[in-house]
Amino acid sequence: MKTNPGRFFEDYRLGETIRHAVPRTVSGGERALYHALYPARGALYSSDVFARACGLAAAPMDDLAAFHLVFGKTVPDISLNAVANLGYAEGRWLRQVWPGDTLAAESQVIGLKQNSSGTSGVVYVRTRGLNQHGEVVLEYVRWVMVRKRDASAPAPVPVVPELARSVAATDLVVPEGLRFTDYDFGLAGEPHRWADYAVGERIDHVDGVTIEEAEHMLATRLWQNTAKVHFDATQRPDGRRLIYGGHVISLARALSFNGLANAQMIVALNAGTHANPCFAGDTVRAWSEVLDRAETMAPGVGAVRLRLVATKQGAAPFALKSDDGKYAPEVLLDLDYWALMPL
Amino acid sequence: MKTNPGRFFEDYRLGETIRHAVPRTVSGGERALYHALYPARGALYSSDVFARACGLAAAPMDDLAAFHLVFGKTVPDISLNAVANLGYAEGRWLRQVWPGDTLAAESQVIGLKQNSSGTSGVVYVRTRGLNQHGEVVLEYVRWVMVRKRDASAPAPVPVVPELARSVAATDLVVPEGLRFTDYDFGLAGEPHRWADYAVGERIDHVDGVTIEEAEHMLATRLWQNTAKVHFDATQRPDGRRLIYGGHVISLARALSFNGLANAQMIVALNAGTHANPCFAGDTVRAWSEVLDRAETMAPGVGAVRLRLVATKQGAAPFALKSDDGKYAPEVLLDLDYWALMPL
Amino acid sequence: MKTNPGRFFEDYRLGETIRHAVPRTVSGGERALYHALYPARGALYSSDVFARACGLAAAPMDDLAAFHLVFGKTVPDISLNAVANLGYAEGRWLRQVWPGDTLAAESQVIGLKQNSSGTSGVVYVRTRGLNQHGEVVLEYVRWVMVRKRDASAPAPVPVVPELARSVAATDLVVPEGLRFTDYDFGLAGEPHRWADYAVGERIDHVDGVTIEEAEHMLATRLWQNTAKVHFDATQRPDGRRLIYGGHVISLARALSFNGLANAQMIVALNAGTHANPCFAGDTVRAWSEVLDRAETMAPGVGAVRLRLVATKQGAAPFALKSDDGKYAPEVLLDLDYWALMPL
Repeated sequence: MKTNPGRFFEDYRLGETIRHAVPRTVSGGERALYHALYPARGALYSSDVFARACGLAAAPMDDLAAFHLVFGKTVPDISLNAVANLGYAEGRWLRQVWPGDTLAAESQVIGLKQNSSGTSGVVYVRTRGLNQHGEVVLEYVRWVMVRKRDASAPAPVPVVPELARSVAATDLVVPEGLRFTDYDFGLAGEPHRWADYAVGERIDHVDGVTIEEAEHMLATRLWQNTAKVHFDATQRPDGRRLIYGGHVISLARALSFNGLANAQMIVALNAGTHANPCFAGDTVRAWSEVLDRAETMAPGVGAVRLRLVATKQGAAPFALKSDDGKYAPEVLLDLDYWALMPL
Repeated sequence: MKTNPGRFFEDYRLGETIRHAVPRTVSGGERALYHALYPARGALYSSDVFARACGLAAAPMDDLAAFHLVFGKTVPDISLNAVANLGYAEGRWLRQVWPGDTLAAESQVIGLKQNSSGTSGVVYVRTRGLNQHGEVVLEYVRWVMVRKRDASAPAPVPVVPELARSVAATDLVVPEGLRFTDYDFGLAGEPHRWADYAVGERIDHVDGVTIEEAEHMLATRLWQNTAKVHFDATQRPDGRRLIYGGHVISLARALSFNGLANAQMIVALNAGTHANPCFAGDTVRAWSEVLDRAETMAPGVGAVRLRLVATKQGAAPFALKSDDGKYAPEVLLDLDYWALMPL
Repeated sequence: MKTNPGRFFEDYRLGETIRHAVPRTVSGGERALYHALYPARGALYSSDVFARACGLAAAPMDDLAAFHLVFGKTVPDISLNAVANLGYAEGRWLRQVWPGDTLAAESQVIGLKQNSSGTSGVVYVRTRGLNQHGEVVLEYVRWVMVRKRDASAPAPVPVVPELARSVAATDLVVPEGLRFTDYDFGLAGEPHRWADYAVGERIDHVDGVTIEEAEHMLATRLWQNTAKVHFDATQRPDGRRLIYGGHVISLARALSFNGLANAQMIVALNAGTHANPCFAGDTVRAWSEVLDRAETMAPGVGAVRLRLVATKQGAAPFALKSDDGKYAPEVLLDLDYWALMPL
């Protein structure tokens, strides 16, 4: 058979590195599409002039666009037969992506654990996105539940990697040259600076977007993500297309501009849960909580650790979990990340 | 509260200049999206080679794309609490926008008039779009009805600016270097030149486009316009998203290619009324009327003043107003502009 | 009348060359949109680095994007009054299209044959796409059934051109400099090389995409194709918009990556039939059959002749024709093309 059946749980070997196919060159086209697909307004990613005033060569590709692009490359090898996308950890953005850059991706298998059912298992991979110079632009750990082809295949020795609960503030990589000493709060859209955000503070980002099928498919295809459930309405018994979790991440992050306009750059992904599926017709809103704050060595640059929660229609204010500790059914996403912000 | 509640009527001061947030750098990506979103076929905006033959350095960004981009920046400060977008006047395109340019926007409050109800008022602003060199690329006056936060707030001294009914032909700015002396009518798509259009002539542009939710949202987001009613289906009791008036402007203008292929560049916006709301599912058509003609100092370049009317399904031929002087319910847009055309 | 009524059958003259309007400059924006609109993953068109390793200057514009762009230009002159798009032949890609190139198109009428009904006729044109240097980038023959304006207009002397059933392997033009000697099968996505494909072999490409109205309209407009039936829901009695046949071609070709990832470049279009109409809501799948194989003079470069069949929901495996020789109702497209593949 010439087509790719995807890997099954028993096809992964601990320690192996999978080189993903189809490198991708980006241009201003991807930036324009990102702005059309999400209400993204971060000034650093919107304006070359603003980015230069912050010490960068130009506006880089949106950090989440780079993430989706790398993630998309991993799908044919990692999640084609995945039952669930279980979590993220130790994500870091290490270098900016510029128009003209070509990204490739590779993943190392760092953990394997068969489920008690014997019909599936959890695969842990550390994925790296690389540019045309072989430099790592971002990396993250993801774990997914993958079906077994053959339930009788022997279970591997279970290895569950020890993962940091959060990227340490000292491990955050601030882009070379970045400084927020001449930061223009007026052009950025909000006056609130690092010192204005208190740990524990929660922000309702107010705005909502009702999702259309065409939009999430355009976005998901743009990242060359081929998972069938996003595109083929005949895959699920209910005839609905499941929306790529990354679409919800980008949508929620863009909505969070309203209240976090100065949380300019994502530098780390600490954790993330796609709490409930999202479908076309859902109206997505977002709220954030300040989890931590840290200073950095770069001039005028602070870091905030944020929880970003995406919800859909019917959600209570600041909805998260029910009394039983489970996510409320209207919660779509619970993301934990570090962003850079002017002091 | 960290989120932007938008300004209310009593928050505006006569004479103040509001600097709008989030400058934006454009590239070929925005041009490609404009072509995907609208049936735009103006040769000057489609082909670098055609534009060079007309004396320009390359094909500039579509004039209406530049307008929407500047307009979008004003929304968080001007129309977030607007009840209605009442009119435009004295709009002029002063400089071309090229790939790589970064646009910012500012608005001066030139008029304020509280309504007799005491719960809202009309705000008049003169908005300017500026490039990275601080040069004004376009300007226009817009007035909107804005809610009051507090009905008991005192009314300002009413000031209604005196606005030109139309930009005078002598005030039109022809792009530096533009000449239509070697204009290729065959490549432009139609043989009709300036002399072929008579004042009073009406043209039915024939073609129609049925609008989809995904399309108008992609367009509106592309210009970073954040007005909630365009994106959030829960904002209106009827569950419908209101389509950004600028989407209808661009759609109608693109449809007018069929009959006005040589009305290449918009150089002035004299007036404009969004006569009725537009929703997904509407099939939009357009017709034009020649209102005036003028010569310019540029070689081979004439100007035509055009009324552009957008209608939806059910409209009578050349539908405009009913006997009572009100717009017919199928009329969406009544726009008055100047365009440049080969003599 | 100033609008374009399109040509009717009696308006065509054998031998005349029609120069089509509105040249178009392309950029990375069109590439990004192509990736958003189709699940396109061919490494040569996705990555500048991969393309350079194959001897090209950079990743060219997708071969089908160039085709649609040229095709779109012909619509106002050739198929505005077409009843049916009957076939393609002798299509060849002669030069790559690069970002910054400007394409124009012209068509020569090479055949005319009135139908026995006397109300329409078949027009055969040879269309050429030209770049800004006047070089032909692609050419193809298409024939369409066009309505007569006046049934009593005299029939022309019938001329039906003799067309090759398939472009001969010796007539295929391999891009200058192309070599697959250092081809990276890992990055390309599949290990199968030219020698692994046997004539007669059939491949089910597995994946499916459910089409949305917004997507096919964005795509069709991107190529400035103005045929009313694709955009205007009031054109057909059933209120449905007919999907541009080229949208189905690109979708099926992109789906065929899964099993034909190394069939990198389309170099010839031998034949093509839009067997049944496609509408929004259809879930499109594809299968291919290897029709022929040939070697080329370029290092490491082989050619495969492929049948690409697009089907919709309800199709039997490898659906094509019924016993009566007619296409099965679930078959949308039957395309015959040559592609280049590493030996």
